[in-house]
Amino acid sequence: MRISELSEHSGSPVPSIKYYLREGLLHRGERTSPNQARYDGSHVRRLRLIRALTEVGGLSLADTRSLLEGIDGNSVSNHDLLGRTLMTVDSGGREPAGPEGGDLELADALAEQQGWFVYPDSPMRHRLAQILATFRSLGMELDRDWLDSYAEAAEQLAQADMQYVEGLTDVDELLEKAVVGTVLGDSLLASLRRLAQASASRDRQRP
Amino acid sequence: MRISELSEHSGSPVPSIKYYLREGLLHRGERTSPNQARYDGSHVRRLRLIRALTEVGGLSLADTRSLLEGIDGNSVSNHDLLGRTLMTVDSGGREPAGPEGGDLELADALAEQQGWFVYPDSPMRHRLAQILATFRSLGMELDRDWLDSYAEAAEQLAQADMQYVEGLTDVDELLEKAVVGTVLGDSLLASLRRLAQASASRDRQRP
Repeated sequence: MRISELSEHSGSPVPSIKYYLREGLLHRGERTSPNQARYDGSHVRRLRLIRALTEVGGLSLADTRSLLEGIDGNSVSNHDLLGRTLMTVDSGGREPAGPEGGDLELADALAEQQGWFVYPDSPMRHRLAQILATFRSLGMELDRDWLDSYAEAAEQLAQADMQYVEGLTDVDELLEKAVVGTVLGDSLLASLRRLAQASASRDRQRP
Repeated sequence: MRISELSEHSGSPVPSIKYYLREGLLHRGERTSPNQARYDGSHVRRLRLIRALTEVGGLSLADTRSLLEGIDGNSVSNHDLLGRTLMTVDSGGREPAGPEGGDLELADALAEQQGWFVYPDSPMRHRLAQILATFRSLGMELDRDWLDSYAEAAEQLAQADMQYVEGLTDVDELLEKAVVGTVLGDSLLASLRRLAQASASRDRQRP
């Protein structure tokens, strides 16, 4: 299909498509003339993935490129790729905040309670520690039962997520589903949580 | 305290503090001379809240200002303020993506399953519908049991969150804890989910 049709099928404006092509986020189409190229379903799918990561996932184009390079690169093991991918998604393009170092002791205690294997230098471990420390710095009491209920929910969700990618042999598909499921899963969970909170606060605050 | 001490206590650089003062995100200190003002604990606390919302929550300064206006405004009922606040946090400064309209039928079915009261024009309802439609547009099968497990987790988390704000009579404190708990709660849950996913994928992908 031509770029105009690609725009229709993907919902991405032509200027955006040209930008992604220039930036290398989208693979080139097959040249059919000096100023025309033919695109196929792989371009539609990739454009949808880019939109999902940027518009739904809220990732920066830099983070999106890094993720796509991870998917396209394919030079290391599935687990390493998946780990790198999830870590990129984890950063969400945001710098962690909170007191330096954070509460690693509590972070490790929560992980141990769930039986998680955590690399000591995992960015996720340090991000969790900093988030925990930030709660404290804002004067929010950190009730251990409340934290464990969050960790328990995370464990259940992760197991459900793994079933998405289980049985997939194609690395591209495995990582794409892992990324989309992880990024969109965050958005899905956040919106569900808001609906539940709004409903619960309404129940509790009605006179 | 002087602005230099405020910077030390809050961990925010002096230029950032001056910017927040100019932008009205931080209330002015008590003038002690033409070019000096005295600040107190309320300024330290507000600066920490701003940092948490922007650095941990990843909110834009515009969204942060809107939230702080909601906290400071104080002109409507607690529930309305809480609803407005949670909706602002919900947007996360991101435009929803996915097919127009989205899958409202499925969104309502998930909410009904959990017994949530949802306003038909709730932005959260439409955002959920669009996220669900985006999963589909990316070729992710939407297993109903998987979705219900996410909604069930959201309900449990919302109930735990409500216990944070329960019994608070001061509106500022109620909203501050609701906002911090909601925004940081998203970050907390995301980091816990990444740790659980990384651990689970390692378990499953080891040869």
